[in-house]
Amino acid sequence: MQTPWEYRYAHRMQKMGSSIIRELLKLTEQPDIISFAGGLPAPDVFPVKEFREACNRVLEEQGAQALQYSTTEGYRPLREMIARHTGRYSVKVTADHILITSGSQQALDFIGRLFLNRGDYVVVESPTYLGALQAWNAYGAQYISVPSDEHGMIVDHLEEALRIGPKFIYVLPNFQNPSGSTLSEERRRRLVLLADQYGVPIVEDDPYGQLRYDGEHIPSVVYLDNHYRNDGEGEYAGNVIYLSTFSKLLSPGLRLAWVIAPPQVIRKLVMTKQAADLHTSSFNQYVAYEVAKGGFLDEHVKVIRATYKQRRDVMLEMMEEMFPREVRWTRPLGGMFLWGMMPEGVDAAEVLKVAIERKVAFVPGASFHPNGGGENTMRLNFSFSSPETIREGITRLGVTMKEILKKNGHHK
Amino acid sequence: MQTPWEYRYAHRMQKMGSSIIRELLKLTEQPDIISFAGGLPAPDVFPVKEFREACNRVLEEQGAQALQYSTTEGYRPLREMIARHTGRYSVKVTADHILITSGSQQALDFIGRLFLNRGDYVVVESPTYLGALQAWNAYGAQYISVPSDEHGMIVDHLEEALRIGPKFIYVLPNFQNPSGSTLSEERRRRLVLLADQYGVPIVEDDPYGQLRYDGEHIPSVVYLDNHYRNDGEGEYAGNVIYLSTFSKLLSPGLRLAWVIAPPQVIRKLVMTKQAADLHTSSFNQYVAYEVAKGGFLDEHVKVIRATYKQRRDVMLEMMEEMFPREVRWTRPLGGMFLWGMMPEGVDAAEVLKVAIERKVAFVPGASFHPNGGGENTMRLNFSFSSPETIREGITRLGVTMKEILKKNGHHK
Repeated sequence: MQTPWEYRYAHRMQKMGSSIIRELLKLTEQPDIISFAGGLPAPDVFPVKEFREACNRVLEEQGAQALQYSTTEGYRPLREMIARHTGRYSVKVTADHILITSGSQQALDFIGRLFLNRGDYVVVESPTYLGALQAWNAYGAQYISVPSDEHGMIVDHLEEALRIGPKFIYVLPNFQNPSGSTLSEERRRRLVLLADQYGVPIVEDDPYGQLRYDGEHIPSVVYLDNHYRNDGEGEYAGNVIYLSTFSKLLSPGLRLAWVIAPPQVIRKLVMTKQAADLHTSSFNQYVAYEVAKGGFLDEHVKVIRATYKQRRDVMLEMMEEMFPREVRWTRPLGGMFLWGMMPEGVDAAEVLKVAIERKVAFVPGASFHPNGGGENTMRLNFSFSSPETIREGITRLGVTMKEILKKNGHHK
Repeated sequence: MQTPWEYRYAHRMQKMGSSIIRELLKLTEQPDIISFAGGLPAPDVFPVKEFREACNRVLEEQGAQALQYSTTEGYRPLREMIARHTGRYSVKVTADHILITSGSQQALDFIGRLFLNRGDYVVVESPTYLGALQAWNAYGAQYISVPSDEHGMIVDHLEEALRIGPKFIYVLPNFQNPSGSTLSEERRRRLVLLADQYGVPIVEDDPYGQLRYDGEHIPSVVYLDNHYRNDGEGEYAGNVIYLSTFSKLLSPGLRLAWVIAPPQVIRKLVMTKQAADLHTSSFNQYVAYEVAKGGFLDEHVKVIRATYKQRRDVMLEMMEEMFPREVRWTRPLGGMFLWGMMPEGVDAAEVLKVAIERKVAFVPGASFHPNGGGENTMRLNFSFSSPETIREGITRLGVTMKEILKKNGHHK
């Protein structure tokens, strides 16, 4: 007889269905579709030559170690390099503050595993990163959504959320995925203060921090927390778990990211990782270290910034020209995404269906809202497509939207 | 104020303490200790040259794809190659039957996540693989231990275990970690029959299947299940989830393994993986495929077999010569481990303490017994150390054991 598999699965799997959106987005993988739906870096900026050189050096000089099992914490020279880099932003951390993960998604998963009992609350921005929701849904999380605007989470609403008793607060302060917003320094300071007051940790997810195209760097939440606590003196022992990644600076195909947190939290995450996958690929850690150790990333990030800034500008320009005037959007200062808002009552999922027929795609915004809302919103990625492709895609999307808005009586 | 981290962790973390054994084993990482404690492949057999060539070809010809995000299921040509390879053993599977994971440890974790509610039972051999226990402890598993002998799980005791209502049965049929035992074909057939009768899936963990040094290949449990169901006709739709890995054949540092299961189970595992870490490193998958696609592994595995067979033989020979006669041990037909049994009442953890002073180490067997027992047993790895090192290490261990057994009145 057939095994009745579906009766054997755990509770936690029941929330994980295949979504309509996911099915629609599969269509966007067809090669003739212009997709602003993904979150891919431009392959044009992958440092392929540097990788080749690094692979050759690593295999020549350290082949036996790079191909062997290694420690769960991660390759020590890589962790020390990240610690030094973090030190440049005046947060004193050591290798013991750092865990290497297989991408930031894994860090999100581990944070869920470490903190969340079924039904626990997490404070999130609205909209927030879909991958975090997917990771924490598996642990039965519930979400308290705090509204946000172009300056990020509206921190005035945070205190109310904290009184509900969440396990932690999740923020993406720089060029947020999906909205493109950046949390202002004033709000960051208030976030740190409130989180400390209520004893609620902050998870700061910062994949794009270095991809700023306009304006001045704003200190990270972990920096402000450290400074608030002890004027920045001593090794970090604060209230923030900070995530970043090599995916946007070097290559997402390596699956290399890191967590910075007080050593006692890192020790727990290390136990979690040991049970989950032993360790992150030693070979990839050796290669990434070899590519980055001489300061290559400081130069390389300039190339990425120039490329993405141009693409963002082309997209904004074309939206100005082609989108119906009833549609509004954000002007992100960095990162990879911008956020469109159609008039209330227009369903972005319906727009996507027509757009796919016109061979252009985006992600409808509703999925980024764990507690509903945002049906009229959309996320557009500007990092992956060339400027010419962006021009063509935005033109197609503009025509589609005008048509639908007209039909719905929103556009004349 | 300091964040009271320890009060914020989830229930599931409470079982995960730092064990005394783990602390002891940290000492074995000192370079002057001869360690039979790990489970490392011999770095001598890593195909470093082939890796270099593969990295160069991949980066030259497919750099942009290999460094980019990719699908959660895994690189299709790699999955197709594994499907073809599995077909050689007469189990018809397609790429849709296969998920690439970041090492088999991750597959164990995902299986726990997919099936286990807190308190669910899993049938295991006694002793069984520690990594599986660590993975499933995180989901609150309980274990039903079925005793085993040199022919693996004593299947006569299985029916009793199945009547308790376990979620699945976990077996390592070939050269088991830790005991080195191999499940006989007769027992495999009976296992398949009983599992089908009770509707309980089997997780077959087979990292070492190709590392046989003596005797004839025994058909895998997944093969026997397929044959039992439909005389091996048609694509696989049976009751077994099969795990294997590139860690022992190619390199553990790549973190590349695979799951074979009916497509409906793979689809659930894919959703699990998407939330957990998006996908396994694309670069590593491209490189492994490039190394393996021309049939290299078929040749390479002969080198590994010859190397490990010699090391096993040296270890057995030295044990014969040096170990006290009260100690017994297994003679594994393959794999990487053998299993020692001291007289009842001798505590292997105590022996380890003295052994570490003598600069030699092993893993005490108690940790492989989820329901207690095995305090007098020990796991010895023979794949990692050179024959000379094995000679010296077993000599040191023999002296240590004789001394302790004498003190305890077991040895004259």
